Amino acid sequence: MYFELFSQMKKTLGQIDTWLVTAEAHAKAKGFDPIIYANLRLAPDQLPFARQLQVACDATKLGASRLTGKEAPAQPDTEQTIDELRARVAAAIAYLDSFSAKDFEASASRMVTQPRWQGKGMTGANYFLEHVVPNFFFHASHVYAILRHNGVPLGTADYLGALTFQPL
Amino acid sequence: MYFELFSQMKKTLGQIDTWLVTAEAHAKAKGFDPIIYANLRLAPDQLPFARQLQVACDATKLGASRLTGKEAPAQPDTEQTIDELRARVAAAIAYLDSFSAKDFEASASRMVTQPRWQGKGMTGANYFLEHVVPNFFFHASHVYAILRHNGVPLGTADYLGALTFQPL
Repeated sequence: MYFELFSQMKKTLGQIDTWLVTAEAHAKAKGFDPIIYANLRLAPDQLPFARQLQVACDATKLGASRLTGKEAPAQPDTEQTIDELRARVAAAIAYLDSFSAKDFEASASRMVTQPRWQGKGMTGANYFLEHVVPNFFFHASHVYAILRHNGVPLGTADYLGALTFQPL
Repeated sequence: MYFELFSQMKKTLGQIDTWLVTAEAHAKAKGFDPIIYANLRLAPDQLPFARQLQVACDATKLGASRLTGKEAPAQPDTEQTIDELRARVAAAIAYLDSFSAKDFEASASRMVTQPRWQGKGMTGANYFLEHVVPNFFFHASHVYAILRHNGVPLGTADYLGALTFQPL
């Protein structure tokens, strides 16, 4: 289910793009510069909006890269405007588009590590379940929550996106 | 991976319990009644803290119930004190403890519905990926964000919990 969950995260990234469009329109209607969103925070010791968005993108990029051994493109985290943030989201979506279900066939048992873990590692299965999935939805939810907290008109349907209904 | 992801959601519910303990201690140290948390919101048209917590619990309870056909216990959503909210979380964890991986063997193709979908349904696979997982982590993240926004000393490690590291 690795590929399927990354596909869902890709869908959520697409929803984030729609929130950025709505946020920019809200700023224009209220007469403030949308660049102001970039540094808004829910708490002084939480990450600001632009960084929450970058980390959500990286949770998918680095997650897919580490679970498959494929190279991930480096990104300098310099986005501040709505257009630049939308491009960052588009880049994360494009990177996920380069994967197929087959790429994740050996992910569960692949050992994953990163410098901050100081020589320790996690199995791909544990890394995906304990880190990638909760971490991605945490930061995506914070991107959303910072906008809602600041008056941007969004709702549950904007978070979940279209659901695949069918007749019973 | 249904059972494994419900196990991760169960772990996150366990983390929520630790946030409640920290929040109660913070309220005592600051000299305010912890019942005040129950009605705090990030936006006037978002759900308050107690309801965010109830919905996070229900995302796991109703998700596991609908994906397996097992009965879910009804709960009246009347919790307001920290002890009552902790009991609600404990009940959700206990309900998830009643499942095994075998219970989810037919979940992917099981048709799932609820009254608000007005006669339509989703396959279990789509319901789980598009609704249960993003919805659970959304509300868990909002429980966390409301506390952080109001000064409760929590950090990333409190959200993720202990990670299963091993030697490389």
